[in-house]
Amino acid sequence: MDHQNSPIDFYFDPCSPYAYFAATGIEALAARHGRTVRWRPVSLLALFKASGTTPAPMVPLRGPYVIHDVARTAQLHGIPYRKPVNFPQLLLAAPRAMLWIEDAYGAAQTATFAKRCFSAYFVEGVDLAQDEEVVRLAQEQGVDGARLRIALQGTAIKEALKTAGEEAIARGVFGVPFMIVDDEPFWGFDRFDQLERWLEKAAATQAAA
Amino acid sequence: MDHQNSPIDFYFDPCSPYAYFAATGIEALAARHGRTVRWRPVSLLALFKASGTTPAPMVPLRGPYVIHDVARTAQLHGIPYRKPVNFPQLLLAAPRAMLWIEDAYGAAQTATFAKRCFSAYFVEGVDLAQDEEVVRLAQEQGVDGARLRIALQGTAIKEALKTAGEEAIARGVFGVPFMIVDDEPFWGFDRFDQLERWLEKAAATQAAA
Repeated sequence: MDHQNSPIDFYFDPCSPYAYFAATGIEALAARHGRTVRWRPVSLLALFKASGTTPAPMVPLRGPYVIHDVARTAQLHGIPYRKPVNFPQLLLAAPRAMLWIEDAYGAAQTATFAKRCFSAYFVEGVDLAQDEEVVRLAQEQGVDGARLRIALQGTAIKEALKTAGEEAIARGVFGVPFMIVDDEPFWGFDRFDQLERWLEKAAATQAAA
Repeated sequence: MDHQNSPIDFYFDPCSPYAYFAATGIEALAARHGRTVRWRPVSLLALFKASGTTPAPMVPLRGPYVIHDVARTAQLHGIPYRKPVNFPQLLLAAPRAMLWIEDAYGAAQTATFAKRCFSAYFVEGVDLAQDEEVVRLAQEQGVDGARLRIALQGTAIKEALKTAGEEAIARGVFGVPFMIVDDEPFWGFDRFDQLERWLEKAAATQAAA
């Protein structure tokens, strides 16, 4: 099998700070090894239901630690970060809009929009839970806001996010960020080092073949 | 406050593979920054109860991933590792014996014994759930096996582990490995990089003062 060109599937939910950190670096990481990134929005809620787990910020003892760890991790990696006013909270319009944009405008627009949503939520203090904010950000990059607004009221967009979650779960995804490349799974921003080593090894094997 | 000499509190349970990985490197990491390690055995069971969580290997979807991640992490770091025959399982005699050995022989003996237990369980295939195996390993380093055997039947040793868990929880510990230094908490072998950066910065601050 020719792995050289197989992309990295990057599963994320815009509500996750660790997914945000990963989003700031995943494309550069992929490019260093001749790979591309497939941006795969999912809802953490579906993943939590499937694995029977609770969002980390809401777990006793672990919650306060995670809040602290997120800020420390951002600082260590030099990533701009400001704790959102409402955190943690469920975001549904944003990942739904991403899937709709992919369908209507293509994958590159979704990647741009995903990164824009992360910055808006984790740096600029935008309340991404509001449909109107999601539409506004999409419009900024040329998306038809009127059409998106109508789509957000429909059922098709909700089904699309549900299906995306089911497909992710079927591949073993239980949290975000989650990267799958050459069928190898990596969970967490703190597995970027292992992902990088994996890609190095794959490239070396390819070169030797 | 003089941080230069304050030790790293290293919380661990010998049943945890990530704690084992951390145990292979924590003393060298501490020494690089002029610190020492206080080995703090706890029972993960008490921590899970306090935070209302489930051992990761037993969580749907996450379980198979963790088994895979443990083996991959060992390989990446060049740490010898063989999945124990019974895994995951609760180990109580080993951490209890560690606390007893500290009381009877001092902290250095406990550190040696802790590392010996990890190797026995995660490399040599020793069934550490058996009291007799725990006694045998302790005897190998000069501990009085007859006295330890009697202690393992008593209530004092059980109370000691319970108290150790309560003290850890009071400091915010909810999993292992968990390192606290200068009141800063670090959870997980994959936070060794952040721990190292923290110690570097503390040393630089100290030197500048």
